[in-house]
Amino acid sequence: MHNFSLHAPTKVLFGQGQIARIADEIPADARVLVTYGGGSVERNGVLAAVRAALGARFAVEFGGIEPNPDHATLVQAVDLGRRERVDHVLAVGGGSVIDGSKFIAAALHYAGAPWEILTEAAAGRLALDSAVPLGVVLTLPATGSETNDGAVISRRATGDKLVFKSPHVFPRFAVLDPTVTYSLPPRQTANGVVDAFVHVVEQYLTVPVDAKVQDRLAEGILLTLVEDGPRVLVAPEDYAARANVMWAATMALNGFVGAGVPQDWATHMIGHELTAIHGLDHAQTLAVVLPAMLQLRRHHKRAKLLQYADRVWGLRDGSEDARIDGAIAATRGFFERMGVPTQVAGYGIRAPRIAEILAKLQDHGMTALGEQGGVTLDVSQAVLEAAA
Amino acid sequence: MHNFSLHAPTKVLFGQGQIARIADEIPADARVLVTYGGGSVERNGVLAAVRAALGARFAVEFGGIEPNPDHATLVQAVDLGRRERVDHVLAVGGGSVIDGSKFIAAALHYAGAPWEILTEAAAGRLALDSAVPLGVVLTLPATGSETNDGAVISRRATGDKLVFKSPHVFPRFAVLDPTVTYSLPPRQTANGVVDAFVHVVEQYLTVPVDAKVQDRLAEGILLTLVEDGPRVLVAPEDYAARANVMWAATMALNGFVGAGVPQDWATHMIGHELTAIHGLDHAQTLAVVLPAMLQLRRHHKRAKLLQYADRVWGLRDGSEDARIDGAIAATRGFFERMGVPTQVAGYGIRAPRIAEILAKLQDHGMTALGEQGGVTLDVSQAVLEAAA
Repeated sequence: MHNFSLHAPTKVLFGQGQIARIADEIPADARVLVTYGGGSVERNGVLAAVRAALGARFAVEFGGIEPNPDHATLVQAVDLGRRERVDHVLAVGGGSVIDGSKFIAAALHYAGAPWEILTEAAAGRLALDSAVPLGVVLTLPATGSETNDGAVISRRATGDKLVFKSPHVFPRFAVLDPTVTYSLPPRQTANGVVDAFVHVVEQYLTVPVDAKVQDRLAEGILLTLVEDGPRVLVAPEDYAARANVMWAATMALNGFVGAGVPQDWATHMIGHELTAIHGLDHAQTLAVVLPAMLQLRRHHKRAKLLQYADRVWGLRDGSEDARIDGAIAATRGFFERMGVPTQVAGYGIRAPRIAEILAKLQDHGMTALGEQGGVTLDVSQAVLEAAA
Repeated sequence: MHNFSLHAPTKVLFGQGQIARIADEIPADARVLVTYGGGSVERNGVLAAVRAALGARFAVEFGGIEPNPDHATLVQAVDLGRRERVDHVLAVGGGSVIDGSKFIAAALHYAGAPWEILTEAAAGRLALDSAVPLGVVLTLPATGSETNDGAVISRRATGDKLVFKSPHVFPRFAVLDPTVTYSLPPRQTANGVVDAFVHVVEQYLTVPVDAKVQDRLAEGILLTLVEDGPRVLVAPEDYAARANVMWAATMALNGFVGAGVPQDWATHMIGHELTAIHGLDHAQTLAVVLPAMLQLRRHHKRAKLLQYADRVWGLRDGSEDARIDGAIAATRGFFERMGVPTQVAGYGIRAPRIAEILAKLQDHGMTALGEQGGVTLDVSQAVLEAAA
């Protein structure tokens, strides 16, 4: 096991009806900025439950935070928050709303131009002294942003997409009510399951370092997603299955799976460029890249692939290569069963612009990806060709 | 899955050499009270490493915190801390030192008599406003106190032993360096493994509520202890095994195994009285009570016992009763392999004072223990008779 530092201070309030518990977490005299995305939280009653929980507290609402939250939108929320002298931010939504709200919470306490938070972070110089306390009501299990300290912010005006992290933007609390996810469109539900699955794989399917608890937690999350992911597609109001999927997605990226182990993330990096060039959903890119990546990196990842075949897919007979083939096929089959195609062609794209994607990877310094830097541009090219 | 609230804010610094990281976690101008137990941390170099990490910071040391830390000892540390105007407490030790240091950290900010913290907690009235920030260097993996908010404090003068909890005494950070455990006596190492194992069982082997991630995390910790517990006894300086045992013991009781599931703890409650009457080590009491408890509660716990038999002990053939018998026998065999006898007679006690133990249980209101209150005094009597 490698050395690690692990910090997960967000208080999780899990279960049906827990939105009401917000009243215990935000002071009665707070001035709250409530942030959300599209109108779904208005339609499904989540915003009404949040308003009821806030009761007589002063609150202003800011809707319209888009997927891949845009700097131009977020600075409007910062202006509103300053005008109304808010001292709490409450994000109601999925990863984009939460990421955007982390930026808002940091910018409200930041003296310089808000975009500097991203550029200072990119330069390794960001040192936030504080941020407005942030709470979260999660509506889409997928990204893990509800219990971590990072955010990805876009600036469409300049074509930038940057990341920042700060311990000050860990949500103070996160409400995870599985019933909130009943009304998600199947595509979002499926994407969330695939996203969580690949988050775990990126931290698990590398090379062994004898980290036994981490490995078995990873396998436990994968097995849960394999069992209950398909169940929530056919029975969207199955509480137990929704609860397991929601908790699995949070546990996938709260730091415990990845503590003290090598991490890969090559699939994510190639996937990001596929989204940029072809507009595929994030989870769709993961579903097409991962099986091809595992196939091409099977020698490097051999020991962990055999463990994965055994413990996640129950493949214990036949040659080692047959078991690895079986595990990769089973992974692909799982994504397809979730309704997420595993070849780029499945999205109606006949000729992926591989040269452009590789040029983007090169521009972004992504020329030695993976747990030991073995995913060169040549490997990425082979992955993309296999994923076409 | 039941609703739950989960809060685990302690930052974990894990691995060889991490004691040096204390320097990043305690301000340079801090006034630090360093607390420890017997002289082992002096002999094995841990205290020297702590002193080196603290560097030029003002620090006073208070040693001699005993197992089952005593109020009379701890108030001396509080007096010292007040005299020296300390603003940080750094506990270097196992569960008793950490529990005692939580009390010291709370008492340093408490206006009333320190013992009131315990009596107010027992009356359900404790409301601490703050505590001195506490850090921990863990030397004995077992109790999980390093990442939770509770402490058990004894007062030998009056025969009391009480518990308090407060979010203010969550350690701010916990250093877990597996090499620190190399020099533990085998008995303490074995006790820690048994203690951690039974912590998981108390939260797992109850009745099923379809909490898939929690169950598999529990099973993963149990499997890790079964594999690496015996390994550290024969090879005390096996870093990988020590690391797995240390991390398993922390994960056993940081809230994640028990989130949203029924919990038992009857074995612990009976065990506490066995310690009080016969002076057995805490882990020794668990090793004698648990197998008898599982045997007597096998019908109630049937579904989970079959899952435990399958997933932890690989018992998949034979009748259901045979598999349950096998799982209980395997549990007993594991404790024995760790050198911890599983009958009271194994400790040279020919006639356990069962009537006295039952009277104590009655005095303490322990007449309906277990996840659904089914462990009446009659059941406890049968457990104790079977454990004799």
